[in-house]
Amino acid sequence: MSAPGVNQAPAINVRQVLAAGTPEAVKSWLDAVEDVVERARQLAKLSSSDWHRLGELLDSETGPDVIDSMDADLAADALETMAVPKAAAMIDALDSDHATRILRQMDDHGRDKLLTALPSTRADTLRGLLSWPAESAAAHMLPETLTVAPTMTAGDAIAAVREHASHLRSDSRSGAYIYVTGPGEHLLGVVPFRNLMLAQADSVVADLMEPEMLTVSPLTDEEVAAQTLIDHRLIALPVVDDDGRLLGILTEDDAAGIAEEQATEDAERQGGSAPLEVPYRRASPFLLWRKRIVWLLVLFVAEAYTGTVLRAFEHELETVVALAFFIPLLIGTGGNTGTQITTTLVRAMATSQLRLRDVPAIVVKELSTGVLIGVVMGLAAVIRAWTLGVGPQVTVTVSLSVVAIVLWSSFVASILPPLLQKMRVDPAVVSAPMIATIVDGTGLIIYFMIARMTLPELAGFNFGDTFV
Amino acid sequence: MSAPGVNQAPAINVRQVLAAGTPEAVKSWLDAVEDVVERARQLAKLSSSDWHRLGELLDSETGPDVIDSMDADLAADALETMAVPKAAAMIDALDSDHATRILRQMDDHGRDKLLTALPSTRADTLRGLLSWPAESAAAHMLPETLTVAPTMTAGDAIAAVREHASHLRSDSRSGAYIYVTGPGEHLLGVVPFRNLMLAQADSVVADLMEPEMLTVSPLTDEEVAAQTLIDHRLIALPVVDDDGRLLGILTEDDAAGIAEEQATEDAERQGGSAPLEVPYRRASPFLLWRKRIVWLLVLFVAEAYTGTVLRAFEHELETVVALAFFIPLLIGTGGNTGTQITTTLVRAMATSQLRLRDVPAIVVKELSTGVLIGVVMGLAAVIRAWTLGVGPQVTVTVSLSVVAIVLWSSFVASILPPLLQKMRVDPAVVSAPMIATIVDGTGLIIYFMIARMTLPELAGFNFGDTFV
Repeated sequence: MSAPGVNQAPAINVRQVLAAGTPEAVKSWLDAVEDVVERARQLAKLSSSDWHRLGELLDSETGPDVIDSMDADLAADALETMAVPKAAAMIDALDSDHATRILRQMDDHGRDKLLTALPSTRADTLRGLLSWPAESAAAHMLPETLTVAPTMTAGDAIAAVREHASHLRSDSRSGAYIYVTGPGEHLLGVVPFRNLMLAQADSVVADLMEPEMLTVSPLTDEEVAAQTLIDHRLIALPVVDDDGRLLGILTEDDAAGIAEEQATEDAERQGGSAPLEVPYRRASPFLLWRKRIVWLLVLFVAEAYTGTVLRAFEHELETVVALAFFIPLLIGTGGNTGTQITTTLVRAMATSQLRLRDVPAIVVKELSTGVLIGVVMGLAAVIRAWTLGVGPQVTVTVSLSVVAIVLWSSFVASILPPLLQKMRVDPAVVSAPMIATIVDGTGLIIYFMIARMTLPELAGFNFGDTFV
Repeated sequence: MSAPGVNQAPAINVRQVLAAGTPEAVKSWLDAVEDVVERARQLAKLSSSDWHRLGELLDSETGPDVIDSMDADLAADALETMAVPKAAAMIDALDSDHATRILRQMDDHGRDKLLTALPSTRADTLRGLLSWPAESAAAHMLPETLTVAPTMTAGDAIAAVREHASHLRSDSRSGAYIYVTGPGEHLLGVVPFRNLMLAQADSVVADLMEPEMLTVSPLTDEEVAAQTLIDHRLIALPVVDDDGRLLGILTEDDAAGIAEEQATEDAERQGGSAPLEVPYRRASPFLLWRKRIVWLLVLFVAEAYTGTVLRAFEHELETVVALAFFIPLLIGTGGNTGTQITTTLVRAMATSQLRLRDVPAIVVKELSTGVLIGVVMGLAAVIRAWTLGVGPQVTVTVSLSVVAIVLWSSFVASILPPLLQKMRVDPAVVSAPMIATIVDGTGLIIYFMIARMTLPELAGFNFGDTFV
């Protein structure tokens, strides 16, 4: 017993297990390194020849624990270095969700070899799960659910569950709710196992069950299903097809895992990168490059527009070079204001706190906030321009520009995420770099237009001359 | 039964309930609006006089469901408009974690009034939870756990659990694991309820239990505890004091809620704002202003340094005005590169995938990636400078600057989050705006230094003249 999450160097490393070369060493390692994240770190560093040797040390007890500690893609590689019957035994010992995740990482040939070596009912279950799209609720469901008939007594139902449970590989989550099904696995209701236990033995299941319950269809997006489980604090959510047949249940631990993955993907998108899809510690520089370079180039091309804007205002810059001093400050402030808004909105939309019909209210709220922010930032700009000694007219220009850019940025940032959702694009793509880029070029135009109106030196320039 | 998460206008609104003015209308509303998020939206729009009227329509059945649908601070306000005995009855019907969250939102006086009106054992339980810091594991634990003695037989233990369970208000999660305790509630082991059910009735609990298990101490940070539950896919995690006594259990639904809140706070910090602490839809413009303005001003002051840098290079800008065209593009690229890295690192650190001792590996990985990215971005800069027609020498300056800024930004972004963690500051404060601001001023210095070395027009300027 120890408090987890403490940042300590591990007592023993899996390399010592390889040096010892005994199955007992694997057992001691699992006992000594309780933290699954630490186990995964160590295992990720092994070469495939190391894996081949470690595979020979695993037995039916330690094998599943070791495989369970690994990322799915790495586990798939590890299993492919093992003899097929041994690898199949490991897959068989995992829960269906994890087994499916690993099998999805293998090529068709490797997957088929393993499935063929499994007991046939188990293989059928896994093939069923693999047939659903990877991001659907059904792909993550536990297909082996505890069901009873509505006509049973509570006593009979408990006996049936006990009998049935002994054949089930799944963990205690699957037993929290007992589902009541009629002919053809048609879902009729749900009864918490606890209520079954507490009821009179001769009461009838139909009288104990709750006929109304939340369900999801098999093709519901995994994130929507996970958010439903979390919002309603459910232990399990039944997956039901169009004909009302119970296909399986989605459990709370799957939901927590899906929600965490989703938050990570969104964070990566918000940072202006494509989601890495593997844990950071296992991402190679080449993978990082591949995930990042596309957005960097897109943003570069978009930002290149600022060069065109500045060249268009070349005369103004040459006439009043002090205008250039404030370029980074003004576009930076616009970007920062916009980023604050988009990150908040994207997160609120991801946790389904906001709907499309809220858009007018969002814009009003953000523009009101923008006025309050603009006043303070405008004053800050007065102080900054004064300390740079650029004279009263440039000071007025800069201060008015800050206010205008803050309001403009607030407007753009508050409509962009809902607009993308409306267009069925994940609003998380509105990254901090993207909103900054959009505001940069347009903010510069605002700045120079205000400069023309307020600076007497620039009075001779007309807008008509600008973009030619 | 319906698929949740679908974006539909609700069938009835809580305002219609107020218009109808009957307890039955409340019941119909709860049945019609299954989505807790939608319920919360509607309830958040009520005034306190509306609340006073709604409070009178709630009964022991509908009241807890309504209160359960609300954010804690709003629920606290609502309960304060009700008569004390009625409000106490509602609190009594909620699970301890939610009841505690609501009570924490009340002032001392209001809280004491409600606690005094509760049954004394329940009040003691809630007072116990309230005595722990709000962000500790103990503050969220379920204090009523099912425990048995190690000397009991499986049959006796099941009977004891059944007897005990009928007095417990808690849900089925609390029954998944049965904890085995010795004298003084000393935690000895755990046995899944399911194993107890499947065991021979005369087998002894001590032989069935698992003596090794993960535990947390009561003052463990809630986020660390939640992450442990999720990483290990546990249903419950016992909270144990220094003497090994079982204080309560932290359950999976609490963990999912804590992890979601944490991800939201981190996203808000990453966007350069202080965490809002209330759902976005309930944040007023004044609150948003307050949470955002501090960081905006800090960043404004930091970014103001770019004005000093540009004024220092005023001669260079006057001599080669084309250099100004690339300012937003160069600092934007530096900011984007840095943002991609910090967001990925901050998230990896929040989900405890990275440790401090990984820092050298991170820097090597990010600099290698930076080289790959620099090559591509340098080529893109050549093309852009050529299309703007600024001549070969400025083109060379801009391209070299892009490469240097990408590498510099990669270095800063890869050491900053771990450095902050080392200093015990939450690395999530390294927001996209912050890394962009840091890279802006330093990137400009790099740009103008390279310009001096490559542009013959600027050959006469020395670094010694610059910052005087």
